[in-house]
Amino acid sequence: MKHIKNIARMKEEVAQLKADGKTIGFVPTMGFLHDGHLQLVEKAKQQVDVVIMSIFVNPLQFGENEDFDSYPKDLEKDLHLAEQHGVHQLFIPTAAEMYPDTMSIKMIVQRGADILCGSSRPGHFDGVATVVMKLFNIIEPDIAYFGMKDAQQVAIIKQMVADYHLNLTIVPVPTVREKDGLAMSSRNVNLSHMERQEAPHIYKTLAEAKNKALQGHFKTVAGLEDWVKQALKRDLKLGRIDYITCLKFPELIRPGALTGSVILATAVHYEQVRLIDNVMWEQFPI
Amino acid sequence: MKHIKNIARMKEEVAQLKADGKTIGFVPTMGFLHDGHLQLVEKAKQQVDVVIMSIFVNPLQFGENEDFDSYPKDLEKDLHLAEQHGVHQLFIPTAAEMYPDTMSIKMIVQRGADILCGSSRPGHFDGVATVVMKLFNIIEPDIAYFGMKDAQQVAIIKQMVADYHLNLTIVPVPTVREKDGLAMSSRNVNLSHMERQEAPHIYKTLAEAKNKALQGHFKTVAGLEDWVKQALKRDLKLGRIDYITCLKFPELIRPGALTGSVILATAVHYEQVRLIDNVMWEQFPI
Repeated sequence: MKHIKNIARMKEEVAQLKADGKTIGFVPTMGFLHDGHLQLVEKAKQQVDVVIMSIFVNPLQFGENEDFDSYPKDLEKDLHLAEQHGVHQLFIPTAAEMYPDTMSIKMIVQRGADILCGSSRPGHFDGVATVVMKLFNIIEPDIAYFGMKDAQQVAIIKQMVADYHLNLTIVPVPTVREKDGLAMSSRNVNLSHMERQEAPHIYKTLAEAKNKALQGHFKTVAGLEDWVKQALKRDLKLGRIDYITCLKFPELIRPGALTGSVILATAVHYEQVRLIDNVMWEQFPI
Repeated sequence: MKHIKNIARMKEEVAQLKADGKTIGFVPTMGFLHDGHLQLVEKAKQQVDVVIMSIFVNPLQFGENEDFDSYPKDLEKDLHLAEQHGVHQLFIPTAAEMYPDTMSIKMIVQRGADILCGSSRPGHFDGVATVVMKLFNIIEPDIAYFGMKDAQQVAIIKQMVADYHLNLTIVPVPTVREKDGLAMSSRNVNLSHMERQEAPHIYKTLAEAKNKALQGHFKTVAGLEDWVKQALKRDLKLGRIDYITCLKFPELIRPGALTGSVILATAVHYEQVRLIDNVMWEQFPI
């Protein structure tokens, strides 16, 4: 496995792969790899010749009071895991490499960014879109892989690919969970012991709500959201609900009914971590 | 010459050209072609296998009170001129094709867009960057050609290419002028007869200022700008000065001295038209 820190060097590698007729699968990450990331790699290995992973904790997508500084890191373990799982090339640029002082043109997301995570993280998806557009142009993947835990990110990136006519396919991969149901996230290590014990309630509640919805238990979208809100308020002693929202996916608009491609998403604040999770009515088309 | 209206169709053509190993030169225009545009085509023909021109009056780069509706059009003449000058493919999308309702992610220019034309045309360069990024991804040119009359546009597009790691080269082409020195522009037809007679003073004054500067006539940048301001105020009876600014190019920052890669740029309002022009101390590196 090659480690590459420099953009120009990465572009040379990509140019060589293209010249050799290889297809490229891209797995963008912020590192501190877990099984969720490794599932993206596994999916990529089935579909492309060469898997390129990036590890970059993108400062542009963190707000001032967010956890940029405490975002967990373990590069040595990441290198080992990536190698072990068959990643061919690992792109690890510095922030100065990705955002030199001269950088002046940013992406802004005008729709779908002021709801869900966007409302408590203003500018977050602008930062995501900007870095992903840069990474796509460096890596030039045929397919890029994103986890469905960040469903809103998947929806926005798909929109960006359409808006800018990019020659690549976005493949969303289902959320990987701990045995107790908690969605895998690099941030989980920053939960306290008590918070970690409580956190699986989030998924349990979402899954129960989905089952009830499929059985026709809720008359309205608001009725479903309210049920989840009451259940989480009852079960979470440490977590504070940020939002509970049901939307059509990937349009991210209010659904008329609780059928079809519907997503139920939530975010919960803990002391040092904000967790997100979601369930979908239909499996996202792969 | 092929005319193509549809993005998907254009991308198919491009894919075929790439598969055939052809290099692509791209000349983006808003139509109503003049010798300035045709010089871009001539330059392209020297450097690439296939020349693709786009004609698209981009609504996103016009402000509310600007001349989008009165922007001159003559598609039949454009087709004839493009064909005659050896353009291979002409891409003429509709606004609905380029900006479907779902389009939601825009580019914003955070530096270099609040000066010169940007200060009287807020959002203009965001619209330029957005459409050019889209066009670059549709056409995938090896080289794209831009006229130096729009020097600020050249600087911002070059910055965008750097910021987003695009695999293409920007080639700026010197401004083409009428015999009396007026910079060629599609908008010139919207000058009244009297305005048209006066307008060549703009270039005459810029050229004279440049000569004086090269002879050491001005002690400071402000002194140069002030001299141009007084000269234009004296000579223009119908035109109203928007700005007279001297900057380093392509950085678009205040120069320490009147040497090196310096640009002196101005914009003048007439009744229905806003004209821009500039002179550079050094020939822009081609």
